[in-house]
Amino acid sequence: MNQFNIAVLAGDGIGPEVMQEANKVLDAIAQRFAVSFTRNAYAVGGYAIDTEGEALPANTLQGCENADAILFGSIGGPKWDTLPLEQRPERAALLTLRSHFDLFSNLRPARIYPGMEHLSPLRADIAASGVDVLVVRELTSGIYFGQPKGRDGEGEEEYAFDTMRYSKREIRRIAVAAFEAAQKRRGKVTSVDKANVLVTSRLWREITEEVAQDYPSVELEHIYIDNATMQVMKNPAQFDVMLCSNLFGDIISDECAMMTGSMGLLPSASMNEDGFGLYEPAGGSAPDIAGQGIANPIAQIMSAAMMLRFSLNLPEAADAIEQAVVSTLEKGVLTGELLPANERSRAATTAQVGDEIVRHI
Amino acid sequence: MNQFNIAVLAGDGIGPEVMQEANKVLDAIAQRFAVSFTRNAYAVGGYAIDTEGEALPANTLQGCENADAILFGSIGGPKWDTLPLEQRPERAALLTLRSHFDLFSNLRPARIYPGMEHLSPLRADIAASGVDVLVVRELTSGIYFGQPKGRDGEGEEEYAFDTMRYSKREIRRIAVAAFEAAQKRRGKVTSVDKANVLVTSRLWREITEEVAQDYPSVELEHIYIDNATMQVMKNPAQFDVMLCSNLFGDIISDECAMMTGSMGLLPSASMNEDGFGLYEPAGGSAPDIAGQGIANPIAQIMSAAMMLRFSLNLPEAADAIEQAVVSTLEKGVLTGELLPANERSRAATTAQVGDEIVRHI
Ligand SMILES: CC(C)[C@H](C(=O)O)[C@@H](O)C(=O)O
Ligand SMILES: CC(C)[C@H](C(=O)O)[C@@H](O)C(=O)O
Repeated sequence: MNQFNIAVLAGDGIGPEVMQEANKVLDAIAQRFAVSFTRNAYAVGGYAIDTEGEALPANTLQGCENADAILFGSIGGPKWDTLPLEQRPERAALLTLRSHFDLFSNLRPARIYPGMEHLSPLRADIAASGVDVLVVRELTSGIYFGQPKGRDGEGEEEYAFDTMRYSKREIRRIAVAAFEAAQKRRGKVTSVDKANVLVTSRLWREITEEVAQDYPSVELEHIYIDNATMQVMKNPAQFDVMLCSNLFGDIISDECAMMTGSMGLLPSASMNEDGFGLYEPAGGSAPDIAGQGIANPIAQIMSAAMMLRFSLNLPEAADAIEQAVVSTLEKGVLTGELLPANERSRAATTAQVGDEIVRHI
Repeated sequence: MNQFNIAVLAGDGIGPEVMQEANKVLDAIAQRFAVSFTRNAYAVGGYAIDTEGEALPANTLQGCENADAILFGSIGGPKWDTLPLEQRPERAALLTLRSHFDLFSNLRPARIYPGMEHLSPLRADIAASGVDVLVVRELTSGIYFGQPKGRDGEGEEEYAFDTMRYSKREIRRIAVAAFEAAQKRRGKVTSVDKANVLVTSRLWREITEEVAQDYPSVELEHIYIDNATMQVMKNPAQFDVMLCSNLFGDIISDECAMMTGSMGLLPSASMNEDGFGLYEPAGGSAPDIAGQGIANPIAQIMSAAMMLRFSLNLPEAADAIEQAVVSTLEKGVLTGELLPANERSRAATTAQVGDEIVRHI
């Protein structure tokens, strides 16, 4: 029997309560597919700051190193926002994990599920046009990590600087990830850059064109980031895979997530070249609704499905979860934020949604 | 009598035909307000490449230097897209003009005009919520112009790099522009940054806070760029003035323009510390509809109004143009793209819209 070792980092806010539902779902998968998941929970984020003095304790990092994959909840909240930036949950835990494990390939699907069109902030006809985008974001380089970064100079001429930097190798591997994904989807890669201004974008374009040669069945188009933010709003159905650098991917993936109007449904995967990965919901820790049992667990559960697909090589199990989620949505077992305002009284709790998904597995 | 000297750079695509209408409107203003506008036309963009061999001929730059303001049309098109980047109209003309005249302060208003809600790609209730945003974008620094920029290294480790760079002085002057504008509007500045990742953003935040001290009646809030692109879609009415660095302003101003759904109505101003400025429509050269007499001249005419207000200190004349435009919209004298598909047969031509605006002056 296949046995997998998962590091569970629930984190802050709604993290722990939605993680509980993901764990239920993994239990159901273990039963049905004759696999077993050993789960070790570790402190991370604000919770780890409060209990162990830092956002990413050595013990947590060690636990991740020993695992086959990391299932991540969400971190941060107003309580820790006054800390120096370097100590805050987002930077000290999330950016460090990305960089430590070289999780360069970030997949962020954004879909408008049938029946969920009314949640989108887009005009009804656009929301109903069949939106299903996969943002492939480079996650360990670019202006997030480029050196030098700092401050220099005196008086009013004192200045700060950051370096955007990409090597051919870094561009090539994320471009390959995008083309591989597009080949299994609708065969189109839209590469987002600012090649009319940035030297890094010009190299990005060059290498993307080279990679495209190896994928004759995939169409490649280039779009400037400013135009991309417009097109996501005007005609999101035109996109299949959007390939982005770290900063542009941060922007575009959030815009795409918001455009669906159902952030609570969207998972993400961050993987390295060995298939090791960190899986987390697209939304944040939502401290305003934490602890009330009303948070939507689906993004966390779909993140677990991505983990099964990409790190544990269990595609049937991943399919089973995704189908169970679709059935649950179709059946209308929904948390409040997915319902029209006048139907919120029939909202399901976090646990009820988790139970319903388990029933369909 | 006040006499002003305007450099008219109509450029490519629809530039010349919409500029003709702006000129009509300036003639009407000259009559009514006892001012006179000497207009000298100069070649720029693709047209200048074709006729004089470069996108910004010395003679054009000289003409701009001798003028009180630059009224700019639009440049670029597929014909010149295969040129090396440095020679292309956008870079060789537009970025050079911005930098040469130190046009650091870029104002880009984005409004959903009453009656134009149906054009917005946003959901009807959001489009009708009263959207009126002014994006204040820093235009002569940041990653557009920061040094060093280049390529280095060998083989797959060859890399490209760009430098994002801001001095206190550069941040302060654009922040002042934003607070000054907010004081005359609804008293709120939203500063867009990525202070959880970028050192430049942290300095940006620091200086913006300092400037805010001098404007006790203006509220300041900070928002990350990723969240900003989401909020523009979800609840654009929350914004009054959005203060952005060069790159983030490029993205946010285009997203805001698209969000209105009526790009053909939106002007922009790019000014230096002496009040000298370049005024241009927010939309592009639209080569696909050029020469057909169907382009909307309003963005160009509103750009002329901004020129009167900010560079020529003629606020009554600017008001007169803006009111005439509103009256024209109310009267329903509209180019095709502003009309529902089934009413396009009653579309006004470029010249008819210009004439109607002149009638209201
Ligand atoms: C928290 C922050 C540093 C992070 C990022 O910018 O990458 C977040 O916005 C994300 O997209 O995962
Ligand atoms: C043409 C391009 C270089 C320019 C920019 O990025 O500034 C344009 O997008 C704009 O916003 O005026």
